[in-house]
Formats: sequence, structure tokens, C-alpha cells
Amino acid sequence: MIGHGFMGAAHSQAWRTAPRVFALPSAVEMSAIVGRNEAAVAGAAAAWGWREAASDWREVIARDDIDVVDIVTPGHSHAEIAIAALQAGKHVLCEKPLANTVAEAERMAEAARSAAERRIVAMLGFTYRRVPALSLARDLIAAGRIGRIQQVRAAYRQDWLVDPRAPLSWRLEKDKAGAGALGDIGGHAVDLVQFLTGQRIERVTGVLDTIVTERPVETERVGIAGVGGDEMGPVTVDDVAMFTARLESGALAGFEATRFATGRKNALSVELSGDRGAIAFDLEDLNVLWVYDRDAPATEQGFTRVVVTEPGHPYLEGWWPAGHMLGYEHAFSHQVKDLVEGIASGTTPAPSFDEGLHVQRVLAAVEESASAEARWVAVSAGTAGERVSR
Amino acid sequence: MIGHGFMGAAHSQAWRTAPRVFALPSAVEMSAIVGRNEAAVAGAAAAWGWREAASDWREVIARDDIDVVDIVTPGHSHAEIAIAALQAGKHVLCEKPLANTVAEAERMAEAARSAAERRIVAMLGFTYRRVPALSLARDLIAAGRIGRIQQVRAAYRQDWLVDPRAPLSWRLEKDKAGAGALGDIGGHAVDLVQFLTGQRIERVTGVLDTIVTERPVETERVGIAGVGGDEMGPVTVDDVAMFTARLESGALAGFEATRFATGRKNALSVELSGDRGAIAFDLEDLNVLWVYDRDAPATEQGFTRVVVTEPGHPYLEGWWPAGHMLGYEHAFSHQVKDLVEGIASGTTPAPSFDEGLHVQRVLAAVEESASAEARWVAVSAGTAGERVSR
Amino acid sequence: MIGHGFMGAAHSQAWRTAPRVFALPSAVEMSAIVGRNEAAVAGAAAAWGWREAASDWREVIARDDIDVVDIVTPGHSHAEIAIAALQAGKHVLCEKPLANTVAEAERMAEAARSAAERRIVAMLGFTYRRVPALSLARDLIAAGRIGRIQQVRAAYRQDWLVDPRAPLSWRLEKDKAGAGALGDIGGHAVDLVQFLTGQRIERVTGVLDTIVTERPVETERVGIAGVGGDEMGPVTVDDVAMFTARLESGALAGFEATRFATGRKNALSVELSGDRGAIAFDLEDLNVLWVYDRDAPATEQGFTRVVVTEPGHPYLEGWWPAGHMLGYEHAFSHQVKDLVEGIASGTTPAPSFDEGLHVQRVLAAVEESASAEARWVAVSAGTAGERVSR
Amino acid sequence: MIGHGFMGAAHSQAWRTAPRVFALPSAVEMSAIVGRNEAAVAGAAAAWGWREAASDWREVIARDDIDVVDIVTPGHSHAEIAIAALQAGKHVLCEKPLANTVAEAERMAEAARSAAERRIVAMLGFTYRRVPALSLARDLIAAGRIGRIQQVRAAYRQDWLVDPRAPLSWRLEKDKAGAGALGDIGGHAVDLVQFLTGQRIERVTGVLDTIVTERPVETERVGIAGVGGDEMGPVTVDDVAMFTARLESGALAGFEATRFATGRKNALSVELSGDRGAIAFDLEDLNVLWVYDRDAPATEQGFTRVVVTEPGHPYLEGWWPAGHMLGYEHAFSHQVKDLVEGIASGTTPAPSFDEGLHVQRVLAAVEESASAEARWVAVSAGTAGERVSR
Repeated sequence: MIGHGFMGAAHSQAWRTAPRVFALPSAVEMSAIVGRNEAAVAGAAAAWGWREAASDWREVIARDDIDVVDIVTPGHSHAEIAIAALQAGKHVLCEKPLANTVAEAERMAEAARSAAERRIVAMLGFTYRRVPALSLARDLIAAGRIGRIQQVRAAYRQDWLVDPRAPLSWRLEKDKAGAGALGDIGGHAVDLVQFLTGQRIERVTGVLDTIVTERPVETERVGIAGVGGDEMGPVTVDDVAMFTARLESGALAGFEATRFATGRKNALSVELSGDRGAIAFDLEDLNVLWVYDRDAPATEQGFTRVVVTEPGHPYLEGWWPAGHMLGYEHAFSHQVKDLVEGIASGTTPAPSFDEGLHVQRVLAAVEESASAEARWVAVSAGTAGERVSR
Repeated sequence: MIGHGFMGAAHSQAWRTAPRVFALPSAVEMSAIVGRNEAAVAGAAAAWGWREAASDWREVIARDDIDVVDIVTPGHSHAEIAIAALQAGKHVLCEKPLANTVAEAERMAEAARSAAERRIVAMLGFTYRRVPALSLARDLIAAGRIGRIQQVRAAYRQDWLVDPRAPLSWRLEKDKAGAGALGDIGGHAVDLVQFLTGQRIERVTGVLDTIVTERPVETERVGIAGVGGDEMGPVTVDDVAMFTARLESGALAGFEATRFATGRKNALSVELSGDRGAIAFDLEDLNVLWVYDRDAPATEQGFTRVVVTEPGHPYLEGWWPAGHMLGYEHAFSHQVKDLVEGIASGTTPAPSFDEGLHVQRVLAAVEESASAEARWVAVSAGTAGERVSR
Repeated sequence: MIGHGFMGAAHSQAWRTAPRVFALPSAVEMSAIVGRNEAAVAGAAAAWGWREAASDWREVIARDDIDVVDIVTPGHSHAEIAIAALQAGKHVLCEKPLANTVAEAERMAEAARSAAERRIVAMLGFTYRRVPALSLARDLIAAGRIGRIQQVRAAYRQDWLVDPRAPLSWRLEKDKAGAGALGDIGGHAVDLVQFLTGQRIERVTGVLDTIVTERPVETERVGIAGVGGDEMGPVTVDDVAMFTARLESGALAGFEATRFATGRKNALSVELSGDRGAIAFDLEDLNVLWVYDRDAPATEQGFTRVVVTEPGHPYLEGWWPAGHMLGYEHAFSHQVKDLVEGIASGTTPAPSFDEGLHVQRVLAAVEESASAEARWVAVSAGTAGERVSR
Repeated sequence: MIGHGFMGAAHSQAWRTAPRVFALPSAVEMSAIVGRNEAAVAGAAAAWGWREAASDWREVIARDDIDVVDIVTPGHSHAEIAIAALQAGKHVLCEKPLANTVAEAERMAEAARSAAERRIVAMLGFTYRRVPALSLARDLIAAGRIGRIQQVRAAYRQDWLVDPRAPLSWRLEKDKAGAGALGDIGGHAVDLVQFLTGQRIERVTGVLDTIVTERPVETERVGIAGVGGDEMGPVTVDDVAMFTARLESGALAGFEATRFATGRKNALSVELSGDRGAIAFDLEDLNVLWVYDRDAPATEQGFTRVVVTEPGHPYLEGWWPAGHMLGYEHAFSHQVKDLVEGIASGTTPAPSFDEGLHVQRVLAAVEESASAEARWVAVSAGTAGERVSR
């Protein structure tokens, strides 16, 4: 694993847990964790159960006893590490966003395609696809349960920037994070809509905003938030993004990504309206999927609150009896499960780097639209490989 | 009352009820109801308690025993009737939208301003302002309880057009309705955001869509929906509108108006994010206001579900004990109450025709943006009278 | 109408509204309202639209121009008035509880049976049966949609007595109210369970409590609550009742009636568990019925949130389009509708006085159990007429 | 660890996870797992990460390299194992119920008291106390935030027995399980109410029911449910329990424990009504605590939906950023954390065996009442050590 921030903790928990909960085709060994700050990475290794700590990712990648590289660093370093790892013949799990620029993402997707020919797997960490309620949503939609999708809305709402003293973390610096709310959480919403509908976004019109434009420079990293001092620095990314998209079918999809939705902590929500039904979901109620069935008797129609913890629900075979709730990190275990199974079978589990590239194209188009008076901007179609897989 | 459709029923219920529930400064007499179809209007008069039925609104307006004219016809006839009534010295309550075009709305607003000099009242029926939960929301916001508003979303979602056999009613014909989802229900959302924030919308970028483009021609009017036959006709208005606005303060507000939100019947929702708190509301849960207070102790913060049926809540003094729910039509009684009090005191209750004119300007700007590649369009500032009143 | 308190306001609203919303077989005239306090009753007559005010109910009952007597006084006077009215050949609508004692209730039921032979109608005002969501629940259960009912819980929770300064109103005096939470609101829960299941309660075990035992004597009646002074008086009724019942089928039903459920204002809730499904309802969300269907596909089961405002739902034909909410008082209009139709056809609409008598027997059995160490007490079976009608 | 069923999986997950998420004072080594079925226990050891599998718990307890014994067998074996382990000087974590009989529980509590003198820790696994929302509830109540508690209701509702073909597992056999819904899940509700209020239950009146009295004999254990064959056998425990209790303060608490609540999978709910506020919780929404504050401004009162995932909430310091949900098994990690800290400091974390003994006394009193016409039965006071600790 390269990196040891919040995502490092979540991925580590998954690497430890998945083999205990699911019957995996290969054993998992947590060999090495890599970071520049030697004390910090040693602490992470001890805390999270990695056999060794290392400071040079190139050295680790070169080792023969390493089969898989899990990249959980900020986005600006993904391309370099992932491409090197793939070229070294390692399977790669790369945390989202794929990269901070379309150009980097294109190079990564190309490296992944090339690696695939050698049965090397490159998987992207849009983990929310593996929240069981969302996996179920995808299955129901693919089975036609809500019919033709005619309208969609998706939002990812947080509020950690409402406090003007919240410090300037790397997530607010364009050179490290690439984009702000748009890239960090809007990307999840874009992937989710494409995943659920099985359709790519073809055009976008949107606006970006930065509500608080300068913040205390971070003096210490503590969890996701950090601590700020007296010195102020400029916020160089957006903190609100609102955009509208056309899907392949012509249906409209409205999007919002914000860190200023007071009271909403981690609220990724989506609602899809079809001609036979509808589906709604909110990550702050993550075990629940709402399903509306227009084929039900007229006087009994309504949104059904499906608690997605039944034995027959996706990924539930490994967990607890019905009605026992799952948490945020369970989806990371599901990701490890699918990755290990993909490696064993030599096939890349979705989402591929190509899919991640397409998400980057969408985000880039939103940025272009926002700087062009919100005009419609076509999303580059890319290659055939960028089609949505389901 | 001129008109006798669904809105006629709701207004009639209010004229009958308000004097029984509130202590009004004047008595209310339900003199005459007017419509072109003599049998239908006679039926409505008998059913709803109007003393007489009439077919010529000009004659009725000319009568000395008429003090107030309540206009509940489709939008294309509002200007002619309202202006004539005001010129005849009658107080006017005009159902929304004010008019189908900005030009008509401007003439109406001018007539209202002129009438006001003679202490003649002209009130516009954006009735939802008087749902107690929304009146309370306005009061809390005006009192600073959620601080400076930094982001807003509003949506009005219905689903009665999901059925492709839903017939072509006048609400789907541009010459009668002016606009589709945008004008009919999007206007409510626009008014609500301006009412709650106390700010006008200054710029918009948006898109419109018509998902089902032809429908059975209506052969019979039954309730709001009607019945269609074999003949098909073109839908000439939008059925989905999605747009983003800038308020005076610079804050972004996202909007959606749709008749294709499967499973959502009459869901006018709004969420306002401030730097001290947030407020959320959904008309399908109309007695409830959700309030988030960032000043509460950190471990006790959350959205509070305020059931707006307490004696101290707006308009509740006339109704039932705490916890006894109000329904859709109660807000119409509140509207009558405020109108009658306004007439008695010679002051126009909000919203004025000027405010309605500004809403029309916003909707027109959305249409302009939608036909100009979604580009930002400035909303004409209009006169000082168009400021939002609260 | 005899009486002019809170229930008088609700019934008056219904008498005014039902003929405007539904096509009734007879015209409704609001002739006279009766009360001992002449000023108060005159005020009520003027406010609520009664043609005259009167102070002697015997005189009014004797009049030829009176066809229907609506009794909304406290329970201790119901028997005398209702029996006299029925004997005078008037149709009677009697607000619940039927009476304060079983003996009185028996005499009333007998009078009603005797009146029925003369096609005189005697209806009891357990109005909540006519909340559309509960009417729908009954229909679904009767149609077997949730199968055999295996367990039930019902609660009626309010909190207006949590404040120790809430004054001693007549509702807290045993000689006027008969019982406290048990009789006033517990009776609703008992009727509702019997109505929904179609089964009578056969045995009960229960406990009663009076949490605050003395309160300020009421110096002024204001709404339901009143205002208290310095003088204190004893609370002579229960304010919490908790009991368990056996239905005819043997199924257990748990009950709670309380005025000490802090934060619950008027929360009548019920949940019925069947072998094919379940139904849940809460009066504080009165347009919503939750329905669980065990026959649905295993991965899609859940409670469906049915918004009971569709055209095909009970009583909805008279109201607004789908998704437009109803309020507390609408059920009173439905009661008037069914009463007027019953009078026209000469049949008593449910619930009959016999059904009310059975509820009184249940409440009396709870009191007996509570004073006998909570032992099981059999409910007197009464006559065949006391079977639950649906 | 002795035992390897569903609870074994949950405890194993916690032993693996707690040291990775929290800074514990001692290292944790998962030495041996014990079970009679050698193949099954070997599989469990491999799957869950135990170093060795063993079949004789006495041998394992005798080993010097074992410090802690975690007992997750059915209740009838708890006493023998726990007492032996404590006498051998091992710290014990015992899954609930403490025992199947009061007599066994008394011997265990005595053994625990004696062990405590040697700084040996004996902790009982009422794990739900450590769901953060419930820990927060306890803190708020202890701080007086809802004032004096005047009424309580608690329910634990499941529905896995609604299916008449659900097989006879050990949980339905009196000799292994001791009691049915009452003991297995009702015990949780009893512990929770005593934990939250800080008061013991002094008297109870209650009823028990067995709705389906015979079921297919289990032919194979699969998860919690198992698979049944053609042979039928008698259900020897209750499947529904409904009872009412008096707390030390005199307040009433209503209880329900059922496996027939169709649609409720694992719904442990509690609502406490105080004179300053109220608290409500449902395990099927386990990250949420509802708090009502009567001291809030009158027009802003309501139940606040506190999402218990903030850094300052109990146990959250080890987990994810705000708004990232926890699941069922997290509370088991919190239990391990507190146990390891207790061992390090030589103090028994709550709940003690004495507290578990008192819960058994309450359940026994309910059984006694149920078989004595539901009469009130006093709960044996036991020793001073059985007071509720918080």
C-alpha cells in the first residue's frame, strides 16, 4: 500500500477483514506500507497490521514478493505510481480519482489496457458501487424493474467547510487535489449515475463556486480535517459544483457536489425516475434502498424501504443475519473480495481505469462549462473501452 | 370568483372556512362564481356555496355589490381580468402564475401599483408561503437562526405525466399555460426561495426538456387530469426544468421542476444551508419543518423535526390542539385571512403583483438560457417595487 | 349540536364542509347549537355558522325542525342526551366515549337498538376510522393482504401533562371524564384495533398510573388546555395506561395510552403483524400507511410508504389531486358523509353504540385488572350486536 | 474463545479489529478457538484467524499462555465454563444471557465477585450498550438532559419465526436456550432500560405466548437460521413476550420481545420520556439518536436526529470522519476495547456478572407472572453488587 491517510486506514481494514468474511481464492498478506514520513508510516504499519514500513515506493514496487499495489495517495501522484506498478507487472488498486488531469488519466488507462493483455488487473476505487444497497439498485435497474430511466438526480453533500476556520488541507489545494468538491465527491456522483444507469454522460452544463476563499494554513494533519494556525492561504479549488448532464439516452441528470450543505455530513444521494418505477438512496442511511413500483396495485403504490441486509442481497452472504446493519467500511471489504477474485481469474473488476478516465472527462467538461458561461460542453467520447461496464 | 377548476374548489373551501376559523375584520359573502360553461358553473355554485352563477365576468366585475375578485382561471386570461377588476376598483386575488408573459405581468403590476394608491389591494396566490411550516421557516431565517445563507436547493416534483396516456390538458398547451413544469410548479419553487431568503434571483442558467412529446387529446375534464381519446396532439410545453440561479448575495440555488419524478406526487422541497444552521422542508410532509442548529452542543447537533402544529406557530391559533395535522387547503384559508385583513387595513399582503412579475422575469430568463445553450442570463432587475417583501 | 368545545369546532367544520366536497343524498342545515353558557354558545354559533344558539337541549331536541342531534359534550352527559334524542326520534351522532360507565353505555346501546327498528340512526364518533389511511388499512386487512394477524401493538401518546403546571381540566376529573388517558385516548386505540382486525378483545391485563397527582385548578378554559391559578386540586384519573389484550383469535395486542410521552403530541400508532405481511400507521403522519408484503420477491421486501391521497383511496374522490395532503379534520367530514348517507338509507354506519359499549367493557376490564394486581380479566361478551362491524 | 457460531464470528471480528482501530494498553493474540466438532472448529480457526483449534475447553483454560476466555456458547453451558475459567485465574468475557437459570447466574456472579478480589475481570456481553448512539443516550440521560424519566418503552422485534417452516434451532429448545424471545432478545431490552435509566426493575407483570408450537427439526445449521427436514418437533420456549415493569423511581416501562413482528428484522427500540425531554432509538437505524429538548424555544421543539458519527461521540475517535456510518459489529470492537482496558487497570467494565444476574431475575419474574395470571411479581433485590452501574 502506498499512502497512509484516511483511505489507508479504510483499505487496511478491508485487507484484514475480507479474507475473514469471504472465501477468497487466494491468501492475502499485508506486506508493506509506504510513506515519506518514516515515523508516521511506521506507526501506520504497526497500527494497521502491515509487516513492514517503507519510504521508497519504487523499491517496494520492484520487489518480487509484492503482487498487488494499493494506491491511496492524493490524486496528483496516482499516474506515476500506478503506471510504474503496472509496468512492473503488479496488479493495482487505485483510489479515486483516477488522476487529477485527463492527460494523466489517459496514460493510466492506456497502461491498464496494456497490462490487461498480460492478465494484470487495474481496478479503480469507486468503492460506493459495492455498498450492497447500491449493488442491489444496479441489479434491479439492469433487470428492468424501473423501466426506461427518464430523469436522474444525484448529490454528494458534506458540510465540513461551513466552518470558516476549517484549515487548508491538501484537499483544498489544486496542485494536489486537482479539483475540490467537484473532483473529490462529485466524481463519486458521476460514477454512481453511470454505474446505475449503464449509460455514459455525453454533455454537461455547470457552475462552480468557492464560498470561502481563504483559510488557515494547516499546521498539523489530524484525521481528515487537520488543524490550522494563524497564517491564511488561498483556497484554490471549488467547494460547490452544480451541473446538469445528458445521458446517452437523452435523459437529464442533475448533480450537486458541495462541502457547504450544513448538517449533511456524508450524504451521497441519488434518485432515478423510470417509466415503470423509481429508486432512491442516501449514503447516510446506507443499508436502505427505496424502490417504487408503478406495476403495483394503484392503491398500494409507494416507495418501499428495503433494508438491504437479507441473505440474498449482494455481498451479504459473508456478514450477519438479516437486520444487522453494515457500515461505511464494509464496501471496502467487498472491493478487496472482487479484486482478489479478479486477480485469480485474470479479469479486471469494474470499475476499470477506462471508466475512471471517462469520469475525469466528465469532470473536465464541467470545469470547461463553468468557465464558459455554463454553456453545454460535449464530453469527449474516448475509446470503446470507456463504455460503462456493469 | 372567476373560474371553477381545481383551484376554484380550493379557493371556495378557503372563503367558506377562513371566517369560521379566524376572527376576520370583515364579513365574507360568497356572491357569484363565473364561468363560460353555464351548466358547469351552476354546478360549481351549488356545490361550493356561491349565491349565484354567472357567465360574463365583465358584468360581474361591474357590479356595485362585488368588492373582491378572485381569479382562478388559466394564466393566459389573468391580465385582462385582473386589470379590468382593479380598474373597476375591486380588490383582486389572482392565482399564480401572475401571467403567461412578462409583458402581461408588467401591465398587471403597473395596474396594481396604480390601484394601491387608491387603497385597492392586489394579491398573488403563491399560497405555499402560508403553509405554517414555511411561514415558520421564513421567520426563523429572518431572525438569523441559520445565519448567512450559502447554498439553496429547491425542487417541485410530480409524476402525473409518467403515464404516456395522460391526456393533453390545458396545462400542456403553451397558449393557455404559458409554460409547463417550469411555469406551473417551477414558479412556486422560485417564489419560495425568494420568499425564504428575502433575496431576488439575479442570474440563471438552465435547461428544459419535453420527455413525452405527444399525448391523447383530452375529451373530458375530470379533476386535474382529464380523460383522453384516440386522437393525439403535440405537447407544446416543457415537462422537466433544471436550472441554477445566483441570488443577490451571490449564493447559488439549484432548481428542479418536473412532472416525471416517478413516485413523487406533489413534492415541493427546499433546503437552505446557512453558516449557523440549515432548514429543510417537503410539501409531502407539510406539517414538518427540519431545522439544524450549528450553535447546539457538538454532540447533540442534528436536524430537528419540528411538527408545526403548536399554538405559537404561524396561523395555528385558529386550528386544533398541538399535534393535530393540517392539510393542503389550510394555506388557502390563511391566504383569505391575510387578504381580508389587508383589505381592511388598505395594505397589500405579500406577495404583490410586483413580486409575481419578478418571478415571471426569472422564468423567462430560464427559458432564454435554455434556448441559448444554457448560458447564464441576467434577470431584468425591474423596478424597486419588485424587491422581495417578507 | 349539543356542546361547543374543541369537538364542537371540529364537528362544525365537518357539517359545513362535507356537503361542499361530497355529493350527499340530503341537504345539511346547521340549525342550532346548544350550551349552558349563553355568551359562549352565542359566540360559537356566530363563529361556526349555526343559525341559532340555545341553552336548553331538551327544548331543541323536542323541535320538529331538528332531524339530527350531534352530541359533543363531556362523556358524563352522553347517556341522558342521546337516549332522550333517540326517543324523540332524532338521529344521533355521539362523540366518543359512548359513556363514562358500562351501565350508561348499556342503556344507550339498548336505546339505539330500539331506535334502529324505527330506522333511526345512532352513530358513535370514533372518527379516526375514517382517516383514509386507516380505512385503507382495514380494506387491505379484510382482503387478506397481511394474512392472519399474529400480533398487534397500539399506542396513543400525547405529552400535554408533562408540564406539572398544566391545569386540572374536566378531562382530569373522574366525575366528568370517567377515565383519564385510558378512556379518552386509550379508547381510540381499542376501537382501532378491533376495527382493523375485525376481532373483539376478550381478555385484558393492565396497569394504570397517575404521575402528577395534583395540579392547578383551571380558572379559564382556553382551547383544550386551559389556564390554571394558584389553587391546587387532585387529579382523579389515570394519566398513563399500559395493557395487554387477547383478541378473539388468540393473538396478543399490546396497548399504551399516555399523556406523558414527551415530544409526542397526538401520536396514535398501530402496527399489525400478519403471516403474509404487516401494516403500520402513525396519526402524526396521517396521510401515510406503511405496508409490508411477505409475498414480494425476497430481495425487494420492505415497508412500503403508501401516501394515501390517490383518487382510488377511501374518501379521496371528494378532495384534491394526488399528493395533496389531508388534515386532522377531514375525517370528521367523512363521518358526516357516512352519517348522512346512513340516514338516507336507514342504516346505522359503523361504529354503532353497541361497538362503543364493547369498547367501554374493555376499558372497564382494564380498570378492574389494574386494581387486581394486573390479573387477566375477561371482557364481558355482551350481546351479539356488539360484534365488530366492518 | 469457546464456541464458534454466529457470536463467534462477531467476537472474532472484534478481537481482530479493536487493536487496529483503538490504542489498547495490551497486545491481543488470538490463541485458540474451542469446539466439539473438530472439523467445524478447525474451519472457524482458519476463517477467523485463530492460531489453533481445540476441542476440550478445560485443557485450554488450564494453559498458562491463555489470559482471557471469551465464551460464546449457548447459555446452558455458560456457568460451568465461566466459573472454571475464573477459578483458573482467567479473565472472562461471557456472551449474554449470563445463564439460563437464576441459580446458575447466582453462582457465576459469586465467582466473579471472588475473582475481582484477585483483579480478575468478568464482563458480560450486553454489547448494545456500546453502540455509540446508546452510549451517547446514557451520557445525555446521566447529565440530566431529559430530566426525571417518567415513562419508558422498549421493544426487540424480529420476524424470523413468522415463516412456519423456520426450523427448530437450539434457540427454540428450552434446555439449551433457557427461554425464547424473552431470554434471547427481551434480555437485551431489560438490560438497555436499566443501563439507560440507571435504575433497576423492581416489579413486573407480563404474558408469554408461543404462536407456532411445532416446527421442522433442524437437520443442518446454516448461519443463525438453519435448515429443517420433514420431522416435526415441539417449540418449548416463548416466541412473544409482553410485560410491564416498575423501575426504582416508580416509573412504568413497557416491554415487548417478539420474533413475529413481520418486517422487523432486528429492531431493538427504546423511548424514554422525561420531564425535560425525551430520547428515542431504533437499532435498525443504529447511527441515529433522536433527542427531544423541552427547554428549546417552544416553536422550535422537536425530535432532533443526531447522527452519532461525530469525532466527539463515544468510541468514534477510532473510526471514520463524520457522517461515515458504523455497522452492527462495531460495538463488539468497543467491547473488546473496554475489556482490554479493564484488564489492564484491574477493574471490571460494566456490565458485570452481577448486573447480568439481575437481568435474569427480571426475566424469571416475568415468567413467574406469566404463569400466575399476569399478576405483579416482585423481582428479588439480590445483593448490593447487583445495582446498575453506569
